[in-house]
Amino acid sequence: MINQTYVELLEDKDIIFELFAYANKRRAEVGAENVYDFSLGNPSVAPPAKLHDALRELLDECDPVSMHGYSPQGGLPGLRKVIAEDINKRFGTDFSPDSFFMTCSAASALAHAFRAVTKPGDKILAFAPCFSEYKVYVQGVGCEFGVVPPDTETFEINFEAAERMMDEKVAAVIVNSPNNPSGVVYRPETVKKLAELLEAKSAEYGRPIYIISDEPYREIVFSGTEAPFISNNYDNSIICYSYSKSLSLPGERIGYIAVNPKAQDAEMLVKICTQISRHLGENGAPMIWQRVLEKVLPCTADLSVYEKNAKIFYDALTSYGYECAKPGGAFYMMPKMPGGNSDEFMKKALENDIIVVPGDGFGCPGYFRIAYCVPTERVERSLENFKKLI
Amino acid sequence: MINQTYVELLEDKDIIFELFAYANKRRAEVGAENVYDFSLGNPSVAPPAKLHDALRELLDECDPVSMHGYSPQGGLPGLRKVIAEDINKRFGTDFSPDSFFMTCSAASALAHAFRAVTKPGDKILAFAPCFSEYKVYVQGVGCEFGVVPPDTETFEINFEAAERMMDEKVAAVIVNSPNNPSGVVYRPETVKKLAELLEAKSAEYGRPIYIISDEPYREIVFSGTEAPFISNNYDNSIICYSYSKSLSLPGERIGYIAVNPKAQDAEMLVKICTQISRHLGENGAPMIWQRVLEKVLPCTADLSVYEKNAKIFYDALTSYGYECAKPGGAFYMMPKMPGGNSDEFMKKALENDIIVVPGDGFGCPGYFRIAYCVPTERVERSLENFKKLI
Repeated sequence: MINQTYVELLEDKDIIFELFAYANKRRAEVGAENVYDFSLGNPSVAPPAKLHDALRELLDECDPVSMHGYSPQGGLPGLRKVIAEDINKRFGTDFSPDSFFMTCSAASALAHAFRAVTKPGDKILAFAPCFSEYKVYVQGVGCEFGVVPPDTETFEINFEAAERMMDEKVAAVIVNSPNNPSGVVYRPETVKKLAELLEAKSAEYGRPIYIISDEPYREIVFSGTEAPFISNNYDNSIICYSYSKSLSLPGERIGYIAVNPKAQDAEMLVKICTQISRHLGENGAPMIWQRVLEKVLPCTADLSVYEKNAKIFYDALTSYGYECAKPGGAFYMMPKMPGGNSDEFMKKALENDIIVVPGDGFGCPGYFRIAYCVPTERVERSLENFKKLI
Repeated sequence: MINQTYVELLEDKDIIFELFAYANKRRAEVGAENVYDFSLGNPSVAPPAKLHDALRELLDECDPVSMHGYSPQGGLPGLRKVIAEDINKRFGTDFSPDSFFMTCSAASALAHAFRAVTKPGDKILAFAPCFSEYKVYVQGVGCEFGVVPPDTETFEINFEAAERMMDEKVAAVIVNSPNNPSGVVYRPETVKKLAELLEAKSAEYGRPIYIISDEPYREIVFSGTEAPFISNNYDNSIICYSYSKSLSLPGERIGYIAVNPKAQDAEMLVKICTQISRHLGENGAPMIWQRVLEKVLPCTADLSVYEKNAKIFYDALTSYGYECAKPGGAFYMMPKMPGGNSDEFMKKALENDIIVVPGDGFGCPGYFRIAYCVPTERVERSLENFKKLI
């Protein structure tokens, strides 16, 4: 019989895709240039040119049979070596190739990480504002999901609420900095304070509480912003990474999970990923992208447009009177809704052909997310409409 | 704390990979040409040439930003249309593009299918001999796994045992024809008899029992063998397909799940795959392969070597006195172990530098699997050693 869990999940509609569908309809009506769609987190810049060059080289050089063969467990050793060396060089860490396990992007890395450090019935916390999909991902593991309410001044961590919610069932917390949906980057003192809280609570309950650090925006940090590397601040931490944003490859499903070598049971945590993968039906990340990345890493796409767009939006919107925490990275920002009524604001925004996402799904009602991973020209032309909206 | 389920799973070692590792060691010692490794189901032929041509074309033609963007839900509509039309033309069916949901290969398709039609605590049956991974996949869903013991004469279905095991907890049965590990293709009367049994049991228990048809070897059927299409024989059926074997792309993770349009709740079963995917952390199959397949399908690699190897092996081995069900497809066969003692036989095989997989993991102790997806020359040179072994 059909599994009702998923039928019910289907009824819990995805607002982002609904808005995207509305935007498509509206574009047909009034012309694409007149719809200011900031709903989707789809990168707007091309992958680095050398990525396609490497792909062409592969097609010329590689034996076509072995080129597409099964992935070795955990991924190509040479690729994991390149990644480990880059991380160690940049952050002064001590990751080895065997700290990494290649996955089909960050969603898959999270699916592995959650299963690695919890058992059904445990609790995983995230800090609002946070990515709306975490809830579904965590429920898929059979764990309870808790959202620590936001500190709406800074969009960093509301420690008072966090401490209150940190009971003995909590097995892990999700950190996502640079943050989707706010663009905020946690300051070093925030990460340090979180580490202290988790160390105290781990000691109190006699079990390690892991940080699962969702880092797809790690490479998008604006000048003047210091972004602490979680693994340098907390031993029991796991990185979930995707090349979707840094290389503009969201549809190609390539990323990794990496266990901090200082974590308790670090080696075993990586090893069991192979077993988790069997349960998920994944069995390896696409070989073509593993081979291409082995050739081109370390590198990123030209990510400078995101900082440019952030500055234009932040300066203009705050000058119009919008209240907004200053984004330090990623390609999002999260202003307060003028008026405070979500339905009214969203209606008025759509009337002005501005498509943004209400904060409810991110644990932040009364705020809205702007995804400015779009051509700068669209940002500039939208400003008049944002002005009208306030 | 580390999840013990996966630690225990790790202890349950993968015999195939152990044999593969042994073979690698032995190759270093005595030379690759002297090790007759038939342990792995990794295709030995190149993908069709037009597949790489299409990839080069894509790199020349496509906008590099949109080329790698997020997959539409379920996969590219144009690709699903091409697949549906091909299936309908070949099998006289009535699949629509919306019957299909692209996945990261067959393992992922199975992960979706199992979750779609069961709830935890249900039972899923497979018919021995069967792929050793089914057990782990089913346990990952929280269902009970049952293996119907083999009919060792034919390696088709042991109906007496099947009927006995078909209790009210059974939600689905897995059919895999052409079969891994035996290479046997179920005859039309076998599939018809299975359909009758399942219809009777569905009526008796007042719930549909689904066939989950794992069809990665569908395109590898030898001349003279009639391979019935499951969907034409049973309405409540779901296809799990992979391009790993038909296009020789096992490491690229591309396949699909397709729900028979005549199945109960057919549309809803496809729709909930999007939700299941969120739980699995999958979120779409690699876009580059979706785009390439949209260009080149329908087509396959040159699969003729498998039939050639099957004939050489079957004729030679039976002439030496091995007992073996005749393979009708795939690239496996499963002879009886001479002597009948598995440990002794495996030891003796390794002494003769023959690497094959014992049948225990496939639900068939006393038999062994030969994976003949290798160059024909290796098959021919190994025959003397097989002769010595009996």
